[in-house]
Amino acid sequence: MDVIRRAHSMRELMRRERRHGRKVGFVPTMGALHEGHLSLVRRMRAAADTVVVSIFVNPAQFDEGEDLARYPRDLTGDVDRLQNERIDYVFAPETGEIYPDGDRTWVEVSELGELFEGKERPGHFRGVTTVVMKLLQIVHPTIVAFGQKDFQQAVIVKRMVRDLMVDVEVEVLPTVREDDGLALSSRNRFLSTSLRQAALAVPQALDVAKERFEAGERRPEELIVAVREALEASDGLAVDYVDLVDVESLTPVPEIERDAVLLVAVRAGNTRLLDNLVFKEPAP
Amino acid sequence: MDVIRRAHSMRELMRRERRHGRKVGFVPTMGALHEGHLSLVRRMRAAADTVVVSIFVNPAQFDEGEDLARYPRDLTGDVDRLQNERIDYVFAPETGEIYPDGDRTWVEVSELGELFEGKERPGHFRGVTTVVMKLLQIVHPTIVAFGQKDFQQAVIVKRMVRDLMVDVEVEVLPTVREDDGLALSSRNRFLSTSLRQAALAVPQALDVAKERFEAGERRPEELIVAVREALEASDGLAVDYVDLVDVESLTPVPEIERDAVLLVAVRAGNTRLLDNLVFKEPAP
Repeated sequence: MDVIRRAHSMRELMRRERRHGRKVGFVPTMGALHEGHLSLVRRMRAAADTVVVSIFVNPAQFDEGEDLARYPRDLTGDVDRLQNERIDYVFAPETGEIYPDGDRTWVEVSELGELFEGKERPGHFRGVTTVVMKLLQIVHPTIVAFGQKDFQQAVIVKRMVRDLMVDVEVEVLPTVREDDGLALSSRNRFLSTSLRQAALAVPQALDVAKERFEAGERRPEELIVAVREALEASDGLAVDYVDLVDVESLTPVPEIERDAVLLVAVRAGNTRLLDNLVFKEPAP
Repeated sequence: MDVIRRAHSMRELMRRERRHGRKVGFVPTMGALHEGHLSLVRRMRAAADTVVVSIFVNPAQFDEGEDLARYPRDLTGDVDRLQNERIDYVFAPETGEIYPDGDRTWVEVSELGELFEGKERPGHFRGVTTVVMKLLQIVHPTIVAFGQKDFQQAVIVKRMVRDLMVDVEVEVLPTVREDDGLALSSRNRFLSTSLRQAALAVPQALDVAKERFEAGERRPEELIVAVREALEASDGLAVDYVDLVDVESLTPVPEIERDAVLLVAVRAGNTRLLDNLVFKEPAP
C-alpha cells in the first residue's frame, strides 16, 4: 500500500491503472475511519481491481466557527486500518494540494444543497461537491462509494455526477450500526456516556417508524409525529428536523407511494447526529 | 466522420479511444463555424490522433432576453466544413442531452466570472464553465482548444481546469482576423456594411497600442487612453470597456512588467464585439 501525498503523483498512478484496463474503486473520506468507512472499503475491494481511499479533512465544507479544528484526525491509525484492509493506495494530500493559492472554482447543486443540512450549514454542500469533484478528477475511479448515513450528501453527489456527466458509478451503501443500533459516525466519540445513551433514541425512533410502515401506515404526517414523539421522549436530545421526502428531489411526499426517506437530525449536546430510514414500496 | 447526437454514445466512443491509447483533441463550439474555429480544428489535428468538435448552442450562457434565438445555427453547413477538415467526430447533442430534466448543478469560477463580460452578462460564465465541464466529462479529451479572441473565457476555463484538476491540457490559440484586421466572430454577420466599416476601428486601435508599446510605453493609462481615443473617433461604435489587466487574475496592472492583456469591448449597433492584445515582456 502506498501513501500518496501529491495530487500529481496520484493522477499519474491512476492513469497507469486505466491504461492497464483496471477497474478503480474509490472511497473518499475525512479520515477518523470506523467500521462504516471500512464497509465501503471492503465493498470496493470486491467490486474493483484497485482500491483508493482518500483521507482529506476538507476545510471548504466547514463553516467559519464550525468544528474544523476539532474534527478528529488520526492519519497514522487510519493508515494502519487501511493496511489491514489490503487496499492499494491511500491518498492523503495536504490542504494546499487540493486548494492551491488562487483557487476559486466551485461546484454547486442548487436547491438540494440548500435543504436540511444545507440550511443548518450554509456552504457545506458546495464544499462537499467541490472537493468530491476535484478528487474524482484526480483519481478518475470507475466506481465511488458513499455511505447512506449521510443521505443528503449521497443524493447531492449522485445528482452532481449525473448532471456533470462524470464518468463514474456512484454506489451508496447501507449504514453500519453499533450493536445497540446507533449509526456509526466520526462524531460519536464526542458523546458523553449519558448522551451516548440518549442518542439511542434515534435508531429506536426509526424502528418505530419502520414498524408502523410495515403495519401499513403510509401517511407521512403520522410517521413523522411518531418519530418526533419517540425522540422527544429522550431527555438529552434536541430535534433539528424529522421529514419524509422523496429519495431524489428531497421534497416532502404527500403519501408514500414510491421510494421515500425519513430524515432525522438531532443535537445531543453540541454534537449533531444524523440518521435516516428508506421506505421501499415493492414495484407494482 | 461520425455525427454523434447522444452523450452516451460519445462517451462510449471516447472510452474506446482512450483504451487504445489515442490522444484526443477537442474543440467545443456553438457552431456557425468560421476560419477561427477551423484554425483550432487544424491545430488539434496536428496535436492529437483523434479530433472531436462539439456543436452545441448552450442556453445556459445566454441571459433571458439575450440573443439565444437569433444565435446563428447552420448544422448542415458546419458538418460540411468539418468533413472537409477530415476530423473524426462531430458531437452535436440536443439541448435535453446536456441539460436533462432536473439538472441543477453549476460550476462557477468566482471573481473572474464577475468582471468584464460577466458584468455585462450575469450568469454568462457560469453557463460557459458548466457546459465546458460537462463536455470535458463526456469527451474526456487529452487536449482542448479555445480561441484567444474570447480572452476572458479562455482564462476562466483554464482556471476551472486547474482548480478542479481536470485531466486535460488547455491550449489557447491566436485570434484569426479578416484581411483588414477585424477579428473573426460568429456575430460579424450581424454587422451592416457601414457598421462593418466602423468595426475596423477596433483592430486599428489595438495596432496603435501595439506601436506605442513597441516604442517603449509601459504606462497602462497612456495605452488605454490611446485606444479609447482611436475607438471613439469611429462614428458607429460605443465603447463598453478598455482595460489593461493581468493575464491570469484579470485585475488592473499598475505598470506592464510581465504579461498583461488589453481587453476591448464595443457595441456596433446591437452587436457586441470583443478583441484584445497581449503584451509580452521578454524574460529578464
